[in-house]
Amino acid sequence: MRQIDVCLTPELLHLYPVEGKVVVVVDILRATSCMTTGIAYGVSKIIPVATLEECAALKKQGCITAAERDGKKADGFDIGNSPFSYMEESMRGKTVAVTTTNGTLAISKCKTARAVVIGSFLNRAAIIQYLKNQPYDVLVVCAGWKGKINLEDTLFAGAVVEGLKEDFFIEHDAALASLALFRQAKGNMRGFLNTCSHVRRLKNLDIDKDIDYCLSMDEYDVIPILVGDALVLNEEVLAENGVVKK
Amino acid sequence: MRQIDVCLTPELLHLYPVEGKVVVVVDILRATSCMTTGIAYGVSKIIPVATLEECAALKKQGCITAAERDGKKADGFDIGNSPFSYMEESMRGKTVAVTTTNGTLAISKCKTARAVVIGSFLNRAAIIQYLKNQPYDVLVVCAGWKGKINLEDTLFAGAVVEGLKEDFFIEHDAALASLALFRQAKGNMRGFLNTCSHVRRLKNLDIDKDIDYCLSMDEYDVIPILVGDALVLNEEVLAENGVVKK
Repeated sequence: MRQIDVCLTPELLHLYPVEGKVVVVVDILRATSCMTTGIAYGVSKIIPVATLEECAALKKQGCITAAERDGKKADGFDIGNSPFSYMEESMRGKTVAVTTTNGTLAISKCKTARAVVIGSFLNRAAIIQYLKNQPYDVLVVCAGWKGKINLEDTLFAGAVVEGLKEDFFIEHDAALASLALFRQAKGNMRGFLNTCSHVRRLKNLDIDKDIDYCLSMDEYDVIPILVGDALVLNEEVLAENGVVKK
Repeated sequence: MRQIDVCLTPELLHLYPVEGKVVVVVDILRATSCMTTGIAYGVSKIIPVATLEECAALKKQGCITAAERDGKKADGFDIGNSPFSYMEESMRGKTVAVTTTNGTLAISKCKTARAVVIGSFLNRAAIIQYLKNQPYDVLVVCAGWKGKINLEDTLFAGAVVEGLKEDFFIEHDAALASLALFRQAKGNMRGFLNTCSHVRRLKNLDIDKDIDYCLSMDEYDVIPILVGDALVLNEEVLAENGVVKK
């Protein structure tokens, strides 16, 4: 039986071999919600990079640059980390270089996996269907906050575990804890998260609209997948669905 | 306001400075439950050591030796990791050297804290009262399982957070997640844990009675505290209570 496991922060990744597995990277607020949105709205490629310097270098090569540090847009870049920026008509067909506090680091640490896909509540159902249809073990990697766990990524991990639990064996307690938390929260995720440190942090930045959007479920059927250094639309998904936005 | 935080596994301790804080180390199944029991039953000192070799060396110095690896008693030592071993009359007044898979390592990593105390469900209420009565920030350090989180230690962390939440500020999501899980589980902890990987692992070892005992609440008023290299009965507690076993 295939296995599903959850790595609650990239700081624990050395305990979770990714080789041979499909890794789902999640950074609900807001990196992977942005990536899902961008691919759904026709962005051609998203190149996640670890540093502001790498991001700036890609601007010279014609990329649109998206850079966030500590929840805020970094100076000198085109956009920050709001998913609504990715809905602009001007983004269609473009390549975006993106660096964020947590999410892009998590992606770069998982590059040796069999496949790396991008998960968010926005494409939850599509991700679950994709994982069910493929033959490999699954590891959900939460981006967390500066090495520590965060609740919103843990809840998404629990949502994936809930979706796969009939078909996959749950190996460890992190997956069970995530599942228990998601079951507790899913009727009122915003209420559950309103007490959280990261949500409190972001509330101070006045991005309430972003948070509500990032917690909305199953908006898009797209699965951003890492090919080389860039996230692109999973072609199988494209082929199957024709139009990717619901 | 004092802060309460939770480190879900010793692998994340580099993110949680312990200096100036009171650290509560927890390894419910079964190291810190044993330590609580031993101190409650009159064991004089418990010396946690990281390796089997150190433990064997202390046998030559007259210690009773307790050694566990992967849930089982290690060959050549006096006792394993069952709390009932610590209730024997022959243990009273003795010094016990102990090494376990997870718990003793967690203790050794926290030695630079202002104080290191031993927590378990068995002394939950006493620990909460002690933490309320002292002026420092609190960090609960879960021993986990080989670097990963486990649910039973996380639940205990949640129990401590619940007990302190009126008097302490909850800084990060690990504490909130622990609290949410404990609230969900506390009505039926054994039922909640029966699905857990570590409980499943221990069930294979036929220690059902140990597990039920380790989940019983508020049995003892003792607080084992680290003084030098050994855990001893917190003298203030002894002075206040006279008789320590309820």
